[in-house]
Amino acid sequence: MRDEAITLELTERLSRELPTGRVLTDRGVTEGYAHDEAEWAPYGKPVAVVRARTAEEVRRTVRACLSHGVPIVTRGAGTGLSGGANAVDGCVVLSTEAMTAIKEIDPLERLAVVEPGVVNEDLRTACAEHGLWYPPDPASARWSTIGGNVATNAGGLCCVKYGVTRDYVLGLEFVTGTGELVRVGRRTAKGVAGYDLTGLMVGSEGTLGVITEVTLRLRPRRPPEHTVAGYFASIVDAGRAVAAVAAAGVTPSALELVDRHCLAAVDAWKHMGLSTEAEVVLLGRTDAPGPAGDEEADVMRDCFAEAGATYAVRSTDQQEADALFEARRLAYPALERLGPVLTEDICVPKGAVPEMLARIHAIADRHDTLIANIAHAGDGNLHPLLITPADDEDARRRAQAAFHDIIAQALDLGGTVTGEHGVGLLKRDGLRDEVGPEVMALNRAIKDALDPRHLLNPGKVVSYAEPGPGQ
Amino acid sequence: MRDEAITLELTERLSRELPTGRVLTDRGVTEGYAHDEAEWAPYGKPVAVVRARTAEEVRRTVRACLSHGVPIVTRGAGTGLSGGANAVDGCVVLSTEAMTAIKEIDPLERLAVVEPGVVNEDLRTACAEHGLWYPPDPASARWSTIGGNVATNAGGLCCVKYGVTRDYVLGLEFVTGTGELVRVGRRTAKGVAGYDLTGLMVGSEGTLGVITEVTLRLRPRRPPEHTVAGYFASIVDAGRAVAAVAAAGVTPSALELVDRHCLAAVDAWKHMGLSTEAEVVLLGRTDAPGPAGDEEADVMRDCFAEAGATYAVRSTDQQEADALFEARRLAYPALERLGPVLTEDICVPKGAVPEMLARIHAIADRHDTLIANIAHAGDGNLHPLLITPADDEDARRRAQAAFHDIIAQALDLGGTVTGEHGVGLLKRDGLRDEVGPEVMALNRAIKDALDPRHLLNPGKVVSYAEPGPGQ
Repeated sequence: MRDEAITLELTERLSRELPTGRVLTDRGVTEGYAHDEAEWAPYGKPVAVVRARTAEEVRRTVRACLSHGVPIVTRGAGTGLSGGANAVDGCVVLSTEAMTAIKEIDPLERLAVVEPGVVNEDLRTACAEHGLWYPPDPASARWSTIGGNVATNAGGLCCVKYGVTRDYVLGLEFVTGTGELVRVGRRTAKGVAGYDLTGLMVGSEGTLGVITEVTLRLRPRRPPEHTVAGYFASIVDAGRAVAAVAAAGVTPSALELVDRHCLAAVDAWKHMGLSTEAEVVLLGRTDAPGPAGDEEADVMRDCFAEAGATYAVRSTDQQEADALFEARRLAYPALERLGPVLTEDICVPKGAVPEMLARIHAIADRHDTLIANIAHAGDGNLHPLLITPADDEDARRRAQAAFHDIIAQALDLGGTVTGEHGVGLLKRDGLRDEVGPEVMALNRAIKDALDPRHLLNPGKVVSYAEPGPGQ
Repeated sequence: MRDEAITLELTERLSRELPTGRVLTDRGVTEGYAHDEAEWAPYGKPVAVVRARTAEEVRRTVRACLSHGVPIVTRGAGTGLSGGANAVDGCVVLSTEAMTAIKEIDPLERLAVVEPGVVNEDLRTACAEHGLWYPPDPASARWSTIGGNVATNAGGLCCVKYGVTRDYVLGLEFVTGTGELVRVGRRTAKGVAGYDLTGLMVGSEGTLGVITEVTLRLRPRRPPEHTVAGYFASIVDAGRAVAAVAAAGVTPSALELVDRHCLAAVDAWKHMGLSTEAEVVLLGRTDAPGPAGDEEADVMRDCFAEAGATYAVRSTDQQEADALFEARRLAYPALERLGPVLTEDICVPKGAVPEMLARIHAIADRHDTLIANIAHAGDGNLHPLLITPADDEDARRRAQAAFHDIIAQALDLGGTVTGEHGVGLLKRDGLRDEVGPEVMALNRAIKDALDPRHLLNPGKVVSYAEPGPGQ
């Protein structure tokens, strides 16, 4: 009863302090904000959803929650794959999806200032109109927001050459764990004034503050890309081709791996008529300017061939090249049509890619689990997708065992448990295994310092509070 | 007396726990470790210098200091320009200059693992032997160490295209403020497991831990550069050329500004026969491959000409081009021969470079102070050098007033008080002015969290403990 009284007080205060329509308490609505796209990650019931439209509204929401001791779970588009945006029982879900203003694009300084709810692809389109480019391109780019991208330090296809979200965040405005609205970072090319609070916020998954504005570094538009496609009879051969490209000194602008399961699923859904004769397709791109691009594309094709490709070719048909990359982007939703998909996100040293792929294959056999593979192969970031029939409890247990085995094998090869999706709920044990107790203590010291009340996205990343009964 | 007893106990313990020769207490020796190259920054008297050779020796030193309540000031080569390595009274200076092993250079993973005492240029040379490149190139590259570069997040000439030290640090081993030896970061291309402790340590100037090993990201060797030189009759014209290059969409691999005072000082010292007819020389480079490099060099030359260069030319003589860049590197030591040099390090938006240069000119007039200018102009990082006659107390006061005025004007133009040299002692007030009380509180919360005893480089960056009577 006490909880209900607090909830009532809080929602009344929020409704009073925020404009009409911001606070949603209807169960049918709040349930839609209760979890992200992480399969089998637990989630609780929010007492309200706040769809903020300004930084001041975010600040008021955080302050109200702090003063009532109510947890705040921040959420962008909810496309996360680790449970980082999952509600905990009794929390307020603070959605930034309605903060969609692109406030500034400055071609001279090569920066953009945006609200957190701007969809990644919308920003990219707006930048292109100024001859500029925002590189980070998660497969979710059409739906995911910049706020969520920053909160998870999102990666993508072009990261193999151009780095991840953190490399593009110059400055942030955010509401702290004590309810202050602050600005960190800068608008200049360089700056070392104080600790790197901006970098610390990037990838902190809503556990250290609520982002209300992002200043992003941009690049000039790049030259057109050359595409190379390689078909392989075995996934390990494809892995060897990846290592060969790295060894040849080429820096591809994308180097993606898509296996037969993915291509078949996309074909079944979109009827794109993709070849499913190969076990694995490797898609390489280079955007080196002029003749250098030609050369790099040739080297990549040769690397594919020498690693045992059954077919390796430079694509001269832009439509075909785009279709192959489109298939890679659609792989995840296509596979979801087959049943629940548990997504892995390990990253291993480039030289360990063939061995890791072989171990994933062995794990699939051992646990009798269908594992499809897509991968940002060029930077060793693999996304084994564990697919189970719906409502098959035993298959689900086997898949979860396979999931944990994959993590253990990635660590054994000197890799990390999460390359770009974040820790959220699904990788909390993995994080602990990866970094050990002393570094966990440092992580917790940071959490304690910046969120002393432990009300910002509790139970995620470094803390173990229970998210509620959930699933 | 109590202090002396503690000192004796501590030095006896260090001498017992460390191999012979590591602990230096001779006053003549310790005085040489008491300060870095920051002009007029106060420093105290260390009670001992420890020249550690292993991470374990660093750990033992930190633990001994912690248990005796003695401050630890970590130091690389001592080439810093903000007083960040200055001793405080009664401290132990922990020098990592003897930890010079390059443990690993891996061409496939494109990474190096090095001890903190490796000199920047030695690493660059070793990388070149493997066809690899470590970009950050502070003007001190021949003397400064990777440990110091990481501690200050050092920049350099090529940062305008390739970023700063933080962009190349993948992982760190360090001793924490509680005396634990820990590893953070990774060896993989991507990784988001936990908070970005690696990035947080970079630029923390020895106030959050003592770095014992660095894992660095490398790039493949780059194509040869094209050089463009522009001579200008006014520094503001040169500033307009910088803004024009940015507006033209070119990304130079270096864009340096050197004024007449610097060229004359280098000539007087090295007799390089550099032209001193121009008021300012702008040096641009591009390393875009093949014809793209040619094009970019032409565009840069045209930008120089259109901004009012009296002479703008693509250098066809590599020796001449190298001499110009050598002059830029030698500017600081050459000017030091004329008297004490107080070095500024502001960074402003690129579009504000002409206005900032004009304001610096006005400040020099107003305070009757000779201000020479070198600048990483392409990223708005200006290094006005305030030169005073030795032992002229009044000139020194005027120079310090000019120093503070420059900082205020940089902030007024949306800039930062330090682009790449760090806060140390000289920019503590500037930091406070730049970020405001709420963000200072966040910085202090981080300091409290990771150095709860406040014994790691006290009085630097975010804290105000007195460094001792000093100068």
